Amino acid sequence: MKRSERLIDMTQYLLSKPHTLISLPFFASKYDSAKSSISEDLSILRKTLATNQNGYLQTIAGAAGGVRYIPFMGRVDAINLVEELIKNVDDEDRILPGGFLYLSDIIGNPQLLQAIGKLTATHFAFSDIDVVMTVETKGAPIAAAVARFLNVPFVIVRRKPKITEGPTISVNYISSSGTRFEKMELAKRSLKPHSNVLIVDDFMKGGGTINGMVNLVNEFDANVSGISVLCEAKTSEKSVADYVSLLNLEEVDPVSKQIKVNPGNVIERTNFEVF
Amino acid sequence: MKRSERLIDMTQYLLSKPHTLISLPFFASKYDSAKSSISEDLSILRKTLATNQNGYLQTIAGAAGGVRYIPFMGRVDAINLVEELIKNVDDEDRILPGGFLYLSDIIGNPQLLQAIGKLTATHFAFSDIDVVMTVETKGAPIAAAVARFLNVPFVIVRRKPKITEGPTISVNYISSSGTRFEKMELAKRSLKPHSNVLIVDDFMKGGGTINGMVNLVNEFDANVSGISVLCEAKTSEKSVADYVSLLNLEEVDPVSKQIKVNPGNVIERTNFEVF
Repeated sequence: MKRSERLIDMTQYLLSKPHTLISLPFFASKYDSAKSSISEDLSILRKTLATNQNGYLQTIAGAAGGVRYIPFMGRVDAINLVEELIKNVDDEDRILPGGFLYLSDIIGNPQLLQAIGKLTATHFAFSDIDVVMTVETKGAPIAAAVARFLNVPFVIVRRKPKITEGPTISVNYISSSGTRFEKMELAKRSLKPHSNVLIVDDFMKGGGTINGMVNLVNEFDANVSGISVLCEAKTSEKSVADYVSLLNLEEVDPVSKQIKVNPGNVIERTNFEVF
Repeated sequence: MKRSERLIDMTQYLLSKPHTLISLPFFASKYDSAKSSISEDLSILRKTLATNQNGYLQTIAGAAGGVRYIPFMGRVDAINLVEELIKNVDDEDRILPGGFLYLSDIIGNPQLLQAIGKLTATHFAFSDIDVVMTVETKGAPIAAAVARFLNVPFVIVRRKPKITEGPTISVNYISSSGTRFEKMELAKRSLKPHSNVLIVDDFMKGGGTINGMVNLVNEFDANVSGISVLCEAKTSEKSVADYVSLLNLEEVDPVSKQIKVNPGNVIERTNFEVF
């Protein structure tokens, strides 16, 4: 097989298997090529990915070694994404009664959703994560996108019991308004003890829902490895200490039709220096 | 820029923008290369994608022309995927009280989820589709995966009203047991009249939920372009006429712990001859 064809197929292959160690002998046999040729291919791939700040090809030396493709969004692309999201959100037509914002179309946009997933996965690229957790409904596509780039499973916590989940563990949590107790539950079989869990959600106000998920993780004897939300509301009292956010919603005024939305903390908190 | 680097970056670029027309001048300027070189690159790409049955690079001639990457899963990969899903589902530990099957982990597996999305998008690759629709909760990641490969937005129908959706249109539908009326609703702003809608869901029994979505599409003055489910239950009475399914669940017996699951109709109904 020619180098050009090999490079195209290798790119496809690696992109479809992020965070997975692939050995040189595997590629050599897949393409019926010498290991030295494969080595050269991988150098070109590594360089191209790095130049375009599109990903990181990690090399693990030794007999059990190989390469691992780590999806990575460069700082410039990350800043551009956050700016694009802000421009998109800052639209008075999004204001709903009660000062809520309509955001479903952003999550339902496949290009934005994948970019949100990639940036989140960039932040947690070198964290120990076994599984992504979210709560229904809008969190589900975000969790799926993040999980795709980290190449780990995701689980969806339910607010309403569903017979197709089987036995569950449930916790009570206080809604963001602080006035209601609610219940959330997760299938018992969906999370192993000692799993490292990345919690993601679309929106965080006071952090009640996120804290519910943290409690749920504890009930499963698992660990919280990180917390990430697409958008946080800028309120002084947050019951969640450590999290990253892509957007920070300062104000929604249904009367003056004003929206103030700022970048979240993900850019300043992410180490982009791996390139 | 060298051909090898161009090919890697082009592969990445095209994979990230399925079903999108990209002009030759765009690539020529992006890579600061002659149009003739780009043409040659694209021939190599087209050939490699076709050889590996990994996608189809459509060429549109003329001044407004260019290339369009169409994700496509070959027949062999499609058959292997369905077999892998069957092997995975055929596990007595999945049997829940009431003869239900636990399937959440299949949807939560990023490799399987992307493959499910790619096969579904293969079937509808040349259909007229503007938007993918599903109903919460487990449908959401499937819709996101299908929408990613078709590169169209997706919308999530709600079973429970949510204030962050704004004004909605709702319909009543009869649950699959035929004994209960339920309600589902979709944000008014999320679907334009005359949109061509692909309806997807994780599981179809009698078709009540799917029919609810069909009615909802009609209420929006939109059109149903297709219906696809991950798994259908093999019952004689289905209220949905035309659909594709990846799996066909014949029997779940909680007493004898027997599961009988067969391939759905997607393989026989899909035209794989484009390669």
